[in-house]
Amino acid sequence: MSVIKVALFGLGTIGTGVADILLNRREHICNVTGQDVLLTRICDKNTTSRRDIDIPHGILTDDAELIFNDPEISVGIELIGGIEPARTFVLRLLESGKNVVTANKALLAQHGAELFAVARRCGCTIEFEAAVCGGIPILSSIATSLQANTIQSINAIVNGTSNFILSQMEDGGTSYSDAVKEAQKLGYAEANPAMDVDGTDAVQKLTILAQLGFGAVVDWKNVSRMGIESVDAIDFKFANDLGYRIKLLAVANRSDEGLELHVAPTLVKFDNPLARVHNAFNAIRVVGDYVGPVFFQGLGAGRNPTASAIVGDVIDTILGRSKITFDTLNLWSNDKGVIPIKRTENFYSKSYLRFDAEDRPGVMRDFAAVFGEKNISIASMIQHETNNPDNSSKQKAVIILITHEAREGDLLEAINEVEKLPSIQGKVIRMRVQS
Amino acid sequence: MSVIKVALFGLGTIGTGVADILLNRREHICNVTGQDVLLTRICDKNTTSRRDIDIPHGILTDDAELIFNDPEISVGIELIGGIEPARTFVLRLLESGKNVVTANKALLAQHGAELFAVARRCGCTIEFEAAVCGGIPILSSIATSLQANTIQSINAIVNGTSNFILSQMEDGGTSYSDAVKEAQKLGYAEANPAMDVDGTDAVQKLTILAQLGFGAVVDWKNVSRMGIESVDAIDFKFANDLGYRIKLLAVANRSDEGLELHVAPTLVKFDNPLARVHNAFNAIRVVGDYVGPVFFQGLGAGRNPTASAIVGDVIDTILGRSKITFDTLNLWSNDKGVIPIKRTENFYSKSYLRFDAEDRPGVMRDFAAVFGEKNISIASMIQHETNNPDNSSKQKAVIILITHEAREGDLLEAINEVEKLPSIQGKVIRMRVQS
Repeated sequence: MSVIKVALFGLGTIGTGVADILLNRREHICNVTGQDVLLTRICDKNTTSRRDIDIPHGILTDDAELIFNDPEISVGIELIGGIEPARTFVLRLLESGKNVVTANKALLAQHGAELFAVARRCGCTIEFEAAVCGGIPILSSIATSLQANTIQSINAIVNGTSNFILSQMEDGGTSYSDAVKEAQKLGYAEANPAMDVDGTDAVQKLTILAQLGFGAVVDWKNVSRMGIESVDAIDFKFANDLGYRIKLLAVANRSDEGLELHVAPTLVKFDNPLARVHNAFNAIRVVGDYVGPVFFQGLGAGRNPTASAIVGDVIDTILGRSKITFDTLNLWSNDKGVIPIKRTENFYSKSYLRFDAEDRPGVMRDFAAVFGEKNISIASMIQHETNNPDNSSKQKAVIILITHEAREGDLLEAINEVEKLPSIQGKVIRMRVQS
Repeated sequence: MSVIKVALFGLGTIGTGVADILLNRREHICNVTGQDVLLTRICDKNTTSRRDIDIPHGILTDDAELIFNDPEISVGIELIGGIEPARTFVLRLLESGKNVVTANKALLAQHGAELFAVARRCGCTIEFEAAVCGGIPILSSIATSLQANTIQSINAIVNGTSNFILSQMEDGGTSYSDAVKEAQKLGYAEANPAMDVDGTDAVQKLTILAQLGFGAVVDWKNVSRMGIESVDAIDFKFANDLGYRIKLLAVANRSDEGLELHVAPTLVKFDNPLARVHNAFNAIRVVGDYVGPVFFQGLGAGRNPTASAIVGDVIDTILGRSKITFDTLNLWSNDKGVIPIKRTENFYSKSYLRFDAEDRPGVMRDFAAVFGEKNISIASMIQHETNNPDNSSKQKAVIILITHEAREGDLLEAINEVEKLPSIQGKVIRMRVQS
């Protein structure tokens, strides 16, 4: 039986979970792979904090060179997160002839092309199941089992933090800020949850899914993105009354004019399985032209589900399945036909709009005229009177509109004009509505 | 670019779908695999019926020997179904050095050990994703992505026919026999649906899942099995009132005393994702010790979803992923520790019981005494008066009981005694209740 030496970068929550499996499940992995997988080095800048697993003496180091320079180490697991030093470490691993397993969606979304080109040049592989919906075997399913299909669409809840916050607001009637605090208390949100709630994390994961499922090459910064920061308790009330739940959806949709990509808080019909994905769960609905819809749900984050995906990748790497898949998929290359990306202004979708207006005659006529001019027809409208919070004499009304399918460019122009109307107060809050 | 020659046995619905993809998606498969996959022979005893795809001249034959004897054919796809001649054909393929892809759950459940032993001896592989929940990449997920885990349980809706019938009865208020007719009309049920509705098909699929997920070696005929034939409209009414839906569940559950395996109509709580799987969909919930619960839903049958799985297997076979997985999983061998199978009489579960009783004083005391003696405590009871259908003077009452967790052996003895009570008419209908 051969010994496979593995090294780990980053001994945070996930890294501790991976080390736990590799150290304490060595016999299980040996049974599965027929090889003895040995965690020989863990590199972390913090070598003194106590972790809740026993680390064998002498394997924890803050010197990454010990790993790059050890020719016996054949697999490096990158769990540092973020761009640097993760990018440099992954490049050094590849250039040292070591295969890489990573959970780093930001790194892949931003530097996928560079990393995969270097991996190909060095004859190494990169596995990254844990980068998108950790506990759900979605990347491997698209990369292997569903390969007979042309993927038509992917609709996914990929950010557990946002989903937890939306669930708390919807099911518990919690305010946005209290839901964020609750998520932080339970470890579902970082001290600064900006990247989760503004849709950045979801867009980065969508970029990876778009590459894998559609061969799309896209700069994640250009993907249409709306976060959940403006979602209010009142939106859930109206959405629920209309038969919808609100979810932060990442969508990739193949059309004649190219691939439509966006992340947005979205009204999803009650009977859509995505509507029933609660709290920190992730879920993904893939439609293939032969297989039809396939729905996956699981824990998208957290120590053990993510560690499960990472060790699964390590096993695939050791057994050689990764090499086959890596060579055939040829990800982030320009060798295969690249699908064009549809321009955001040419998206067509239904929208949910909410804004505050003065409650006086003629206001509705004003904004209705703007929408009419821009060819946006209104499917339903609710006007809800509230007291103006500043106690001024003016009565305020909350206006909720659901549009029919409309061109995004026209809609944005209309919103811009509506916001300039003297009778409209503040911003127009927009969400997508799934047909 | 090398040419890979493939042959197909069985040109029924599924076979036609597979031929459709292989013939009309040749360029797509070429892009995916880097190899030219050529369907060179189709063997079917019926060579004259028109099919709804164009079959190239000269490739359809009723002579299987043409395939076994062609050394250029490297992959054989078996879609005949049933035991013979499928078993003989698969053995001949393996002995001719050809890798096999099959959708045949009955064959694997009954002859898995024999076929896999021959495949190992001949250096060939057997792939069978389409044998369980066709459109759901469940077998590959268990065999690869989830390998870091010890699987704790599998709960699954694996028979689309039964699920369609139960959905019709539950959602449409249809009677059992009308639901069966509707399923037949829509092509979801065979002219003789016995193997679907009596749980045989589900037990065979569970046997395969038990081998893959737990290494269990089990004769499918010994697996505890109840079908849906006795489920009545009244059961849905009471189940719904109590917060449950009724699903034909296949369950594999690891416990200290071994693996618990059963197929039964089961009361599933509304908030369980399995409760919301409607019509011909299949679904499966796998719990791994690290990954936690992972839920999959998709089309379990039908031409295109099944063909998608089969061509996915062909691609895995051609690329060599199958060989790696086949060698490491070592299925249906006794090389790895075999998990003991828990005896049915030692299962503990809640049960739903329904029976007809005379509506007179003392009846409840009689059956309550029987359950009490057998240590079975009743969690809830509903008594529902109905008119006796034979218009006799005796009033009939329908009794519905839900038990607390009880030992199956005790429960069966109690049911046996209750059925002998003079005040009880006919059989006691039993379903499982999921805690």
